[in-house]
Amino acid sequence: MADNWHMQIRVQMAHTDCTGVVYHANYLNFMEMARSELFSRLCQEHGLTVPQFYQMYGFFVVHGVNITYKQPLRLAEKATVVSRVVKRSRVQTVWHQAVYRGDSANKQLCTDAQVKLAFVNKAMRPAKMPDWLWSTNTEVST
Amino acid sequence: MADNWHMQIRVQMAHTDCTGVVYHANYLNFMEMARSELFSRLCQEHGLTVPQFYQMYGFFVVHGVNITYKQPLRLAEKATVVSRVVKRSRVQTVWHQAVYRGDSANKQLCTDAQVKLAFVNKAMRPAKMPDWLWSTNTEVST
Amino acid sequence: MADNWHMQIRVQMAHTDCTGVVYHANYLNFMEMARSELFSRLCQEHGLTVPQFYQMYGFFVVHGVNITYKQPLRLAEKATVVSRVVKRSRVQTVWHQAVYRGDSANKQLCTDAQVKLAFVNKAMRPAKMPDWLWSTNTEVST
Amino acid sequence: MADNWHMQIRVQMAHTDCTGVVYHANYLNFMEMARSELFSRLCQEHGLTVPQFYQMYGFFVVHGVNITYKQPLRLAEKATVVSRVVKRSRVQTVWHQAVYRGDSANKQLCTDAQVKLAFVNKAMRPAKMPDWLWSTNTEVST
Repeated sequence: MADNWHMQIRVQMAHTDCTGVVYHANYLNFMEMARSELFSRLCQEHGLTVPQFYQMYGFFVVHGVNITYKQPLRLAEKATVVSRVVKRSRVQTVWHQAVYRGDSANKQLCTDAQVKLAFVNKAMRPAKMPDWLWSTNTEVST
Repeated sequence: MADNWHMQIRVQMAHTDCTGVVYHANYLNFMEMARSELFSRLCQEHGLTVPQFYQMYGFFVVHGVNITYKQPLRLAEKATVVSRVVKRSRVQTVWHQAVYRGDSANKQLCTDAQVKLAFVNKAMRPAKMPDWLWSTNTEVST
Repeated sequence: MADNWHMQIRVQMAHTDCTGVVYHANYLNFMEMARSELFSRLCQEHGLTVPQFYQMYGFFVVHGVNITYKQPLRLAEKATVVSRVVKRSRVQTVWHQAVYRGDSANKQLCTDAQVKLAFVNKAMRPAKMPDWLWSTNTEVST
Repeated sequence: MADNWHMQIRVQMAHTDCTGVVYHANYLNFMEMARSELFSRLCQEHGLTVPQFYQMYGFFVVHGVNITYKQPLRLAEKATVVSRVVKRSRVQTVWHQAVYRGDSANKQLCTDAQVKLAFVNKAMRPAKMPDWLWSTNTEVST
């Protein structure tokens, strides 16, 4: 998956804290939402719903996050989460994900992170994800 | 505003709890997100950003919520928040908001609520919202 | 359970939003935390952990919340959640829960709510809770 | 501050997700809660409330988090957040924080992180924190 995957979000009241900006932990939610949205589309292309996938194969757990905060986001601002897989095996994926203020034409970096995910089965033991999951370039319609 | 305002959401991991369904408090977030999205569009139609509106006039605070839970939502399900103002004055609005599984063609009621909001200034004192805010039928493009 | 159950909390950054006060949905979390803490102690008195209880009997789901907001709570303030069961059967309990600024000696009402809970089994079907759960006055040490 | 600061927490329903364990972003909340609780006690020792401190000096913003997840925490489990400052200047502090299942006598590492904080004034510009804040060993009663 050489391509970047873009997802738009808008900052909601519930994302902010009393310093007036997005609470730092909520950027992890934005990033997870972007990965999930992409994952959901990949499942759909293979004729599966997300719960069906979980039943058949397993799911991803976060093993580590290294996140840096550059600029704060504020209420009602639009942001873009740009995600790409930078490393992968059948049991693990490493993502680079960044959150930008604005859209792709006019953007400012707010936060970026490296996120490591492991694939596990229902018993939370390491498992192998299906070949089709990350073996081809991800060409999903945005 | 006789019309219903529809907003699509998708259930994320962060919305769920260990019983496997959306955590009950998070439906309040969905409803707030729907009101904010509509509010943001109304501001835009009057040439204001949301922060500009807050600076000029004030903001809404929730005075009460009466919410009933009918059916649980699960991870990755798509839902629709249907919102309408059922009562309004210059200082208060009362909303009916419902969350449905699925889209408008094929939907099942999951949760519905009556939400009372008061308008306050920056000092959190009761204030009057501008005439244009709710005085006309809301015709916003979805 | 005629008695009131008191639980102390302190407002954290993550509870607040950019209006400077606790985000309205988070009071539902405070109330759920108070019910859970009490429930955990009742289980312990009967020689069970909470997960063991869930395995053996089932769990509670929220059927409805009618909450009113009176005064906002702010960062770092201490608050007390006062909870009592006002109605109960083997399949349902109704709680009155209030959040006060300060402690029991000097308190101001911030929020109060009626919360309806139903007891369900793992398949999320209505179930009966064990006799001992609510049949005696709750005398737990705080 | 050579000493470790211990804070007990209990996993609530709202902390978990539908995989049955604590949602990964919520560990950042646990860590922030531990830092805030300590900060609140330090303010108190200097005769200030937290809001008074914010008014007089400024506040901390998170610049970076490098977190690793080892073992999941589950509903109703008790955990301990162990925090210490590993590096400090007048404008920045670096913390090591770890979350353990159980108490100090019998504990298992679940998550650990390095957290970088910067001190800013109300305009979110870099600022200097007061001398007393971190210049002495932190001896606070738990």
